Amino acid sequence: MNNQSREKKVCLIIGAGAGIGGAITKKFASEGYHVCFARRSDQHALMNMEKYLKSCGYSASGHILDVTKEDTIEELVGKIEQKIGSIHTAVYNVGAQIGNRSLEDTKLKTFELGWKLGTFGLYRLAKNLLPIMAARGTGNLLVTGATASVRGNSGQHSHAATMASRRMLCQSLNAEFALQGVHICHIIIDGLVDAPDTLGKMLGPAEFELLRQNKGYEKNGLLLPSHIAETYYHLAHQHPSTWTFETDLRPHSAIPWWNHVTKEF
Amino acid sequence: MNNQSREKKVCLIIGAGAGIGGAITKKFASEGYHVCFARRSDQHALMNMEKYLKSCGYSASGHILDVTKEDTIEELVGKIEQKIGSIHTAVYNVGAQIGNRSLEDTKLKTFELGWKLGTFGLYRLAKNLLPIMAARGTGNLLVTGATASVRGNSGQHSHAATMASRRMLCQSLNAEFALQGVHICHIIIDGLVDAPDTLGKMLGPAEFELLRQNKGYEKNGLLLPSHIAETYYHLAHQHPSTWTFETDLRPHSAIPWWNHVTKEF
Amino acid sequence: MNNQSREKKVCLIIGAGAGIGGAITKKFASEGYHVCFARRSDQHALMNMEKYLKSCGYSASGHILDVTKEDTIEELVGKIEQKIGSIHTAVYNVGAQIGNRSLEDTKLKTFELGWKLGTFGLYRLAKNLLPIMAARGTGNLLVTGATASVRGNSGQHSHAATMASRRMLCQSLNAEFALQGVHICHIIIDGLVDAPDTLGKMLGPAEFELLRQNKGYEKNGLLLPSHIAETYYHLAHQHPSTWTFETDLRPHSAIPWWNHVTKEF
Amino acid sequence: MNNQSREKKVCLIIGAGAGIGGAITKKFASEGYHVCFARRSDQHALMNMEKYLKSCGYSASGHILDVTKEDTIEELVGKIEQKIGSIHTAVYNVGAQIGNRSLEDTKLKTFELGWKLGTFGLYRLAKNLLPIMAARGTGNLLVTGATASVRGNSGQHSHAATMASRRMLCQSLNAEFALQGVHICHIIIDGLVDAPDTLGKMLGPAEFELLRQNKGYEKNGLLLPSHIAETYYHLAHQHPSTWTFETDLRPHSAIPWWNHVTKEF
Repeated sequence: MNNQSREKKVCLIIGAGAGIGGAITKKFASEGYHVCFARRSDQHALMNMEKYLKSCGYSASGHILDVTKEDTIEELVGKIEQKIGSIHTAVYNVGAQIGNRSLEDTKLKTFELGWKLGTFGLYRLAKNLLPIMAARGTGNLLVTGATASVRGNSGQHSHAATMASRRMLCQSLNAEFALQGVHICHIIIDGLVDAPDTLGKMLGPAEFELLRQNKGYEKNGLLLPSHIAETYYHLAHQHPSTWTFETDLRPHSAIPWWNHVTKEF
Repeated sequence: MNNQSREKKVCLIIGAGAGIGGAITKKFASEGYHVCFARRSDQHALMNMEKYLKSCGYSASGHILDVTKEDTIEELVGKIEQKIGSIHTAVYNVGAQIGNRSLEDTKLKTFELGWKLGTFGLYRLAKNLLPIMAARGTGNLLVTGATASVRGNSGQHSHAATMASRRMLCQSLNAEFALQGVHICHIIIDGLVDAPDTLGKMLGPAEFELLRQNKGYEKNGLLLPSHIAETYYHLAHQHPSTWTFETDLRPHSAIPWWNHVTKEF
Repeated sequence: MNNQSREKKVCLIIGAGAGIGGAITKKFASEGYHVCFARRSDQHALMNMEKYLKSCGYSASGHILDVTKEDTIEELVGKIEQKIGSIHTAVYNVGAQIGNRSLEDTKLKTFELGWKLGTFGLYRLAKNLLPIMAARGTGNLLVTGATASVRGNSGQHSHAATMASRRMLCQSLNAEFALQGVHICHIIIDGLVDAPDTLGKMLGPAEFELLRQNKGYEKNGLLLPSHIAETYYHLAHQHPSTWTFETDLRPHSAIPWWNHVTKEF
Repeated sequence: MNNQSREKKVCLIIGAGAGIGGAITKKFASEGYHVCFARRSDQHALMNMEKYLKSCGYSASGHILDVTKEDTIEELVGKIEQKIGSIHTAVYNVGAQIGNRSLEDTKLKTFELGWKLGTFGLYRLAKNLLPIMAARGTGNLLVTGATASVRGNSGQHSHAATMASRRMLCQSLNAEFALQGVHICHIIIDGLVDAPDTLGKMLGPAEFELLRQNKGYEKNGLLLPSHIAETYYHLAHQHPSTWTFETDLRPHSAIPWWNHVTKEF
């Protein structure tokens, strides 16, 4: 890492596949940030992403990172802060979705894994990064939430438990760190995202393409990662007098989580 | 109104004094919108604002508008749509704050007035404007909320009743109109705003200046209208695949509405 | 009214037809309260109810009361307190449901009427009754809420606006009066009630009977007023160390307001 | 265990010290249930409780149970169902409160322990018990929540994260099991409880007695476990047409979680 990037502001994105995280990576890179983006697996995709970003003239470094493993987050934060630069914005975008599973089909290990991905990873990131940001008196931690952050539902035993926990952890972190200049922001993604790496893999390519045709494309019924990224970028640049803690995002044609689709009396 | 402004997108701001509404007016004007801004009274201030905006080269028209009077909103919307241009974004920023009053000190007339300002005015705006926007398949209605939108408190009998009503009306409007391309967005202003016309008048000039020194200025403890306006502008330009229905805004050093200040167990 | 009933504790039920209000009336009467029950119209039904209650050996008086008319609530409260006895528990059970109506089909007068029934009537009751209860250091105000109290939905412009307002008014009343010994309690009825006077009239007798067969009876898919009344009675007798402000009630087979019925991702 | 108790309905209370859990144990025992009560430690206190209950003529069995240990909950549920009787009502009352700790002072192990106590234990109980109840088409799972279930706060990183998770797990369990006849109910204890084993130990005897004198006793400013138990008992006996999913409980003089104590504008 040369001096030039040392002087750049750094944006760290944990959970940077081909969906929301990838789009945020591109957005911050295109705005002049050095982006450190991390994904759980797929070294090949990681290198392609880094190559692509550099081909655009951006400053970027990709990392394979399993947030469920000890010391991984801790080491990455340390390395960036020591060798690359000060983290201006960190995005915790690790998903914990496992599809709908009945209680019987949700194993103890699955439930525990959900907690590690959804909650504990964020906690470890916060523990390592927020004191540094507080010492600088500035910084952003943007955290991706989901419909399951605000309500449990059938088959969501693991997902809702960990996403609600993630949200409340954000509230606690905010209560301690906002006063010290660190902006914590929780973004509720309340709809299906046009993301090949997550929704696409869950549905399979054929069903995913069908969904895109029925709901997405010009119908605007799937959240587009590039537009999500614009709001994340806006949130990371709010003035300290005027911070958002929580915002929701959904396609105009999606039914919000608080609405039944059935006839109401 | 000449042809030039006819071709401009129009932003209508109801409740445009020297605080949030005024800042939104300036922001949209500076971005090339024709702004129609309305305030309850003070023709002098209105004309000064219009003069100022025109002196910047902006396109603007000011209106005195009492939202509690019959047909006022209805006529203004009709006039704008017919003579000025299509309303791209309407902002309902009418306050209904009367300070803290005990139940005994809150008269029936006061309570009714609170409802007219807080809820009924928005309802009338929606009834007149949203069908037009729906027919065009596009448009934004941004609605200013407050701490009292999400919780009642001592002395807030009138304010909380009407602001919660306003919020829920937004949810109902969203359920009917989002699908038709109209973006409804409710912004919770959860803190004190550095606004001479509202907070300033409530406190008086001396106490207001003291508050600014203790909490505002470089301490960033008062919401700055110009920064609030940036978020409103961002929200009005989200892509239909990725809309925010609700967001909150507060100074970094303010305690969010859901947090006690007392020691918790 | 003889001395005997003067010594009885009084329960005032506003909105006492053949559903929730009627069942609460019976429950409190059967537990030894003098019940003052009021309904908007139908003198015949009122007298039958009074006759029935007296035939059970209960102490009761029925009143025709239009809460949208000036001074009606005020006079009734005054009359009861002066001539009958101290109101131990007041139940505000006035509905404001008008079925699902689009914004276009919701007239200004309808919206205003919704506010008068849903919010303003409660406010007037509170203004007249709570200071008396506070002076005694004891009393209960139980307020019936609905699904629309916590979320707006398509067609619920009037209903959600007024029910959310009612709920927030309860929070404000609680903040001022709980400390003075007055128990404010808001009960969210989140499902269809087996009530001939409201749901029955809305659906018509044939459709209502069909609904009862498909969802009600031994299927327990409709809220039974007599069981609702048990919970109201419990809430009115909680110890001041242990008060409920809010509770929800729904049939075991109903989908809660926060759950979609569609498959979630 | 003789045949007599085999025929009794069983109430299982996990987390039964000298506070809420103990009072629920006594209440259900006094109403004719066989109570299986479990606490983490203190065999002596456990035996005293069992002795006391039997001296009242009640049917009871005490168990030492560490919910953080593998297979403990699983074995207890199995043993009760096989040898004692059908569990009519289970109460998960395990606390996860560690007092207010900054992020720095909240160790990874502490955070994980909070999750095990607050969330994972309930999940394991649900996994083992709810299918049995569903097969019987009846049963209650009452879960104790806290202020931290609905909002994070300074120093509550661990507590709020796990209690919010617990709450959302309840919502998911409800979505799957209510339809099958199993009543899930989440009770938010939003205030200080007059409980020697938890609050008493946290404060120490002198400060606890001072608190009781300042807030408790006839001032009713501390939640009394015996009165909490009455509401739990009521909730466990609601008719399937009329179930509560969530209720809150607080002393009349406590400030609800949604209210600031500071002057509001």
